Amino acid sequence: MVREHFSKQFDTELNGIRVKLLEMGGKVEVMIANAMQSLVERDTELAVKTISFDHEINRLEMEVDEKCLEVLARRQPAARDLRFITLALKTVTDLERIGDQCANIAKRSKELSQEPNLKPYIDLPRMAQAASDMVKDALDAFVRGDDALAVKVCQDDQFVDELSEQIQRELLTSMMSDPSTISRAMKINQIAKCLERIADHATNIAEMLIFMLKGKDIRHTIA
Amino acid sequence: MVREHFSKQFDTELNGIRVKLLEMGGKVEVMIANAMQSLVERDTELAVKTISFDHEINRLEMEVDEKCLEVLARRQPAARDLRFITLALKTVTDLERIGDQCANIAKRSKELSQEPNLKPYIDLPRMAQAASDMVKDALDAFVRGDDALAVKVCQDDQFVDELSEQIQRELLTSMMSDPSTISRAMKINQIAKCLERIADHATNIAEMLIFMLKGKDIRHTIA
Repeated sequence: MVREHFSKQFDTELNGIRVKLLEMGGKVEVMIANAMQSLVERDTELAVKTISFDHEINRLEMEVDEKCLEVLARRQPAARDLRFITLALKTVTDLERIGDQCANIAKRSKELSQEPNLKPYIDLPRMAQAASDMVKDALDAFVRGDDALAVKVCQDDQFVDELSEQIQRELLTSMMSDPSTISRAMKINQIAKCLERIADHATNIAEMLIFMLKGKDIRHTIA
Repeated sequence: MVREHFSKQFDTELNGIRVKLLEMGGKVEVMIANAMQSLVERDTELAVKTISFDHEINRLEMEVDEKCLEVLARRQPAARDLRFITLALKTVTDLERIGDQCANIAKRSKELSQEPNLKPYIDLPRMAQAASDMVKDALDAFVRGDDALAVKVCQDDQFVDELSEQIQRELLTSMMSDPSTISRAMKINQIAKCLERIADHATNIAEMLIFMLKGKDIRHTIA
């Protein structure tokens, strides 16, 4: 009876970590969307809001860290639960750094609003959507323990990388044919790099999850 | 007597994690130095060697992860030891990603060796040295539990950021005055960004350490 009560409470605590991670993931997705909207619609106010929202993500990171440490100290979990908590500790760091990247995008977007548009943004929003989907899928895979979805996330990274390379090639062409575009093109290039990093963070989460589920390390083997 | 034996072995295990982290840190420092040397001396062979050395860092990451999980599962450490191990789990991820950045630098260096030099590299090697020192200091602070050194690492990050901004300004000027330099300047800019990220990873380690030592979170408060 005592044991059952203990185990129930333990499940509640693990679930609390899961819920916090999903909450953080949801907020990060909104940040990605807002950062891109501020760019496309030249909305400086939304850019400023996105930059300051980063604090909220940082606060959530500390909360999840503390929750994990508490469970580790009080429950002394073994095997699968232990792997879940260590993965949560690592995942939360990736999510926090995705928040940093969104703030970086918003900073560049704020600067770009002060200058004439180089050309309509088409590939960057596609790239942002793909990166955001990867973050969502990586977290869903984590909380559901879905290794097939995690593998999909790792594969999707290639699409984002290809888009990034294509954007870089176009920017290079634009800069070479018209040097007056250089400063703006460099900022747009930085945004593409930020999105690439967001996708990398999602891939890291997915790779660590596959490691946890299979009990073997496939990190550094998926291209 | 049994307890003493237990505690001695536990200390040995924690020390094993410390030694592995320092070993990994030492190898990462060599990687930074080699990536820069390959750039400055246009040494394609060294660049290729640096890119493939990344596997060694990945292998060490998995080793430290496994050691930490083993200690968590078998020893059920509390309080300070628990914080040490969770920090080791996070630190090793930062070190692994520093290795990725070194490989990225070496890739750009390899490409740049195929083209004429833009100008002698002066600020980039300074930036690399500063970033490498920060990595070393962050790990030393970690294994010695030295919070003053960790604070210094966080402060040193500003120097690296300033150098990076200066390099970017110079590259922008060069590209605008001579568009034939654009492609090379973009690659050099990417290298500066990689070094900036290496310094950021060292700062992350230092901030997490201060959190562990003080038992409170100063992350996201140090500028």
